[in-house]
Amino acid sequence: VDGRPVGIFDSGAGGLTVLHECLVTMPHEDFVYLGDGARCPYGPRPAPEIARYALEIASYLETLGVKLILAACNSATAAALPLLQERLALPVVGVLAPEARAAVQTTRNRAIGLLATEATVASRRYARAVHELDAGAHVVEVACPKLVPLIEAGASAADDLLDAVREYAAPLKDAGCDTVILGCTHYPLIRPVFERVFGRAVTLVSSAEETAREVAETLARKGVENDAGREGRCRFLTTGPSEEFRLLGERFLQLPIGAVERVALTDLERAAA
Amino acid sequence: VDGRPVGIFDSGAGGLTVLHECLVTMPHEDFVYLGDGARCPYGPRPAPEIARYALEIASYLETLGVKLILAACNSATAAALPLLQERLALPVVGVLAPEARAAVQTTRNRAIGLLATEATVASRRYARAVHELDAGAHVVEVACPKLVPLIEAGASAADDLLDAVREYAAPLKDAGCDTVILGCTHYPLIRPVFERVFGRAVTLVSSAEETAREVAETLARKGVENDAGREGRCRFLTTGPSEEFRLLGERFLQLPIGAVERVALTDLERAAA
Repeated sequence: VDGRPVGIFDSGAGGLTVLHECLVTMPHEDFVYLGDGARCPYGPRPAPEIARYALEIASYLETLGVKLILAACNSATAAALPLLQERLALPVVGVLAPEARAAVQTTRNRAIGLLATEATVASRRYARAVHELDAGAHVVEVACPKLVPLIEAGASAADDLLDAVREYAAPLKDAGCDTVILGCTHYPLIRPVFERVFGRAVTLVSSAEETAREVAETLARKGVENDAGREGRCRFLTTGPSEEFRLLGERFLQLPIGAVERVALTDLERAAA
Repeated sequence: VDGRPVGIFDSGAGGLTVLHECLVTMPHEDFVYLGDGARCPYGPRPAPEIARYALEIASYLETLGVKLILAACNSATAAALPLLQERLALPVVGVLAPEARAAVQTTRNRAIGLLATEATVASRRYARAVHELDAGAHVVEVACPKLVPLIEAGASAADDLLDAVREYAAPLKDAGCDTVILGCTHYPLIRPVFERVFGRAVTLVSSAEETAREVAETLARKGVENDAGREGRCRFLTTGPSEEFRLLGERFLQLPIGAVERVALTDLERAAA
């Protein structure tokens, strides 16, 4: 039995969809969630800048005594996962590999679509992860710069959101993809829209669900799970305005979040120094 | 429901340890196993030659109407998996990635040992697969040319086998590896020897068990499983002497094998042409 919490971070509140799946899969674990609200979104930023932010946050989480760090942000994983793993002694799990693997297992026609941020698509890491597992798979990648702002604005039923999803989905439908990776932690929040645009014939694979499975398997294999009987607790930290995080977080998680602790950027910088 | 069998191949009878794990995990599936007895072992052969053999065999299995091909041979996976995936329309699953992932999930000190054939170690594919998942993991690779011949000769209790295992294990123990990949499908047959040499503190990860899990997950996700209630059947093919395969196979599988069908090398060559 290992009572230490799992650390999760994201550029903002999007990673809460990953936390949600973790709570479903591992209700007995404690979690510390850190959202980098002050510097959100990461998607349009250059990779070296994202990598620096991710290293600061992961180093800070390490000082809090977590047992594993989960990069619940596709842009941060694409830009920084190898760096974090080289620098930290703790195990670091990211999104990306888990859902790439799920997509390869799922597809029947071996045509896999990817919807993600500009940074994630530019990294080509999804295509690489898919081709490591199936060298003959066809991957169609589409960057979706409009989606995160629309989702954060709460536009889940708006016409402009539907138009944007239709626009981004078109090349994937034209290519006949039977499996589509929702490669950004914000996207599960508008899953009904994707489901209607793609229809029954397409399987949607989400970063959030697959990564929660990966974390659960990792804790079990390492033998560092918490007591199965207990009820886990969540602690929330943000570099941005606490109240903004709380409101967005309660909408994303559908759970009362309570107190949100503010972390200064200088504290993050100090942890990585 | 998809009643087609799963095709499995290996250089010889070693892949039967993978078939065994498949039978434990998927007792309701049918399997066709092809051992390349005429050209066994693959371990000491150059990669292009192994790749050519693997392509012939996989193409032949495709003509038998299988729904998925499992390369149950580490040397063939290391040399040919991407080629098979590019050339065949069928999904092709190999060993290697599944146990690399299991090892990353399992290790606590991130020092992972690998015992495998010369061809597999020379390919560096295990180290690459581990580093894709954990860029900070340390992989210690040892080629074990003596083990396959000793295991095929039935030397599971012999002094020279124990000496060989001790010799190959020494660099892994010196490096403090807490997790060791048995990276050859023959090795589960002498698991007790590895267990005694490494002791309780080291977790042994086997290609056979992890790959069977991978196949089961893949069939489930693709929705091409056979009826859960039924009892699966196995069909055995070899390019070598049938009786030799039957004797080795019954020892490896601990199951009566019955008829073993002989396949001519010219039939394999024709399938790949």
